[in-house]
Amino acid sequence: MTSTFKLAALSDVAELTKTFPTLDKDSADAATERQNSLTKPPGALGRLEDLAIFLAGWQKSERPQINKAQALVFAGNHGVCAQGVNPFPQEVTAQMVANFEHGGAAINQLCKANGADLSVIALDLDHPTADLSQGPAMSEEETLNAMNKGAQAVDPNADILIIGEMGIGNSTVAAALAAASFGGEVADWVGRGTGSDDEGVQRKIAAIESGLSINGGRGGMEILAALGGREQAAICGAILAARHHSITVILDGYICTASAAPLHKVAPALLDHCLVGHQSVEPGHRKLLAAFGKKAILDFDMRLGEGSGAALALGVLRSALACHNGMATFAEAQVSEA
Amino acid sequence: MTSTFKLAALSDVAELTKTFPTLDKDSADAATERQNSLTKPPGALGRLEDLAIFLAGWQKSERPQINKAQALVFAGNHGVCAQGVNPFPQEVTAQMVANFEHGGAAINQLCKANGADLSVIALDLDHPTADLSQGPAMSEEETLNAMNKGAQAVDPNADILIIGEMGIGNSTVAAALAAASFGGEVADWVGRGTGSDDEGVQRKIAAIESGLSINGGRGGMEILAALGGREQAAICGAILAARHHSITVILDGYICTASAAPLHKVAPALLDHCLVGHQSVEPGHRKLLAAFGKKAILDFDMRLGEGSGAALALGVLRSALACHNGMATFAEAQVSEA
Repeated sequence: MTSTFKLAALSDVAELTKTFPTLDKDSADAATERQNSLTKPPGALGRLEDLAIFLAGWQKSERPQINKAQALVFAGNHGVCAQGVNPFPQEVTAQMVANFEHGGAAINQLCKANGADLSVIALDLDHPTADLSQGPAMSEEETLNAMNKGAQAVDPNADILIIGEMGIGNSTVAAALAAASFGGEVADWVGRGTGSDDEGVQRKIAAIESGLSINGGRGGMEILAALGGREQAAICGAILAARHHSITVILDGYICTASAAPLHKVAPALLDHCLVGHQSVEPGHRKLLAAFGKKAILDFDMRLGEGSGAALALGVLRSALACHNGMATFAEAQVSEA
Repeated sequence: MTSTFKLAALSDVAELTKTFPTLDKDSADAATERQNSLTKPPGALGRLEDLAIFLAGWQKSERPQINKAQALVFAGNHGVCAQGVNPFPQEVTAQMVANFEHGGAAINQLCKANGADLSVIALDLDHPTADLSQGPAMSEEETLNAMNKGAQAVDPNADILIIGEMGIGNSTVAAALAAASFGGEVADWVGRGTGSDDEGVQRKIAAIESGLSINGGRGGMEILAALGGREQAAICGAILAARHHSITVILDGYICTASAAPLHKVAPALLDHCLVGHQSVEPGHRKLLAAFGKKAILDFDMRLGEGSGAALALGVLRSALACHNGMATFAEAQVSEA
């Protein structure tokens, strides 16, 4: 199944908060009450309880389920690679897409281990976006097209959606989106990515500073068009389509989270249904999560992308629901309370 | 299958480091080399890589496997409950054992979700140990008997062993073991356990201070006998038997880790094969892990015991091995390197 959610114009995003579903408080309250009746001291399962209650609110059910977990990895290429921002050659994006398709990448193993159906969507890899350091990376039409491809890829019957990305050079794109959305020193948003040395990091900073200067003073979706790439736009589209269907999203690490920064700039509530799978080693991620007011599920010193941290977090969510739905209450088990 | 590892005397523990297997460096090195050849920037899977390499070293295989995961939960009752150290009545230990046997507890769901075979071993629940605040909790014979029950429960064919505990009052026992093993202020080792109020915490501290004073000046295994309970002794026995068979152990939270403190006092190397599943909310756990020089796999604000944090961590280990064993190398996938 594919979603029929479709955007007609970038400016329509601002209106979506008026019609989008929100967390159902009654279901979340019922799930909280259930948690407090289970055979454990209240709160003793910590964040596993919070996750079960969050899913209850979005699934509008006291007993949320993960029967169908969908994982989407979007791939794109970036003109900013001309600035020497990444030690890997750009053809690696397509090579890694082939690796995903043949089942050889980390995300394949993590989806299999944690029970997610993986689809990889390569977005016009032979035609990188324009170089963001020299002008807008994408036109409004290109951006909208990529967003709608991302939206369409969402299965409306999924119980949860994992989002990941692949694109040589896209840690530079991510830092540009974060810096344009939240301000501050560019250097604070930039890390080593797949393995840049000090000079590589300086080239990333210079490219972003040039991009911000040339493409400055824009609103959220214009930031996405000017400084993003196709996989970032597709991620935004998938996040919106998931929300349209009340599907909880697990974002991955820095690049995936930063891709959503333009949506946050339009309206923070657009990301209310999003969890963050893991805290990346990339230094900008901590800053970004603070700006989002979100805490990552896992902190595992990972920095791979592909959706790897989100897929790992899916296993934790499955455990959270296993406890929530499978445990006996004090009354059922005839266990005395405190 | 049951282990034939058996201790004849508590004093024999000190000699075990001379004969016990150690991490096989060649296998760990081969696993490290493999990690660096897989289709990702080296190190990008963070702690997933470390875990795979650790398991490789203990399984003496470049490609470690978790085919059989065993979970053991030991339960005991404690004379120190006479001091009002726990808000739950002592019969809850047996009621929770029944809940484990009927499949209704958190640990049942977490073992099912993460693929572990659970056994629950109740240790003479009708006869609580003596009150540690008034004198030694156990004789050497009682201690040895419980240790050997723990050892015998280990399946020598298991690929990994999860250890948990249940025992009303045993967060007081844990704090007593930690304080006796590592010193410092008793209050720094004591937390709210299953839900003590301020007065309950004061009663815990008073009971432990009395116990340390009456039972002071002892070596590791004498600390276990004087201040421990049967489930703490069984945990020590299971840890030793697992080591005898080169099986990696995942300890759970504060109580489970503190149960191993006497072994650490005898020789820190006795715990070289042990991982710690999660960082408990109990404040003493952070201090204890610092003393052990270990970092927990997960930090999830949990404080339940039963092996729950260790079972949750098993899922992460499975993901670590899925990546380690299932990913393609750069050469296999024909992906260009940096």
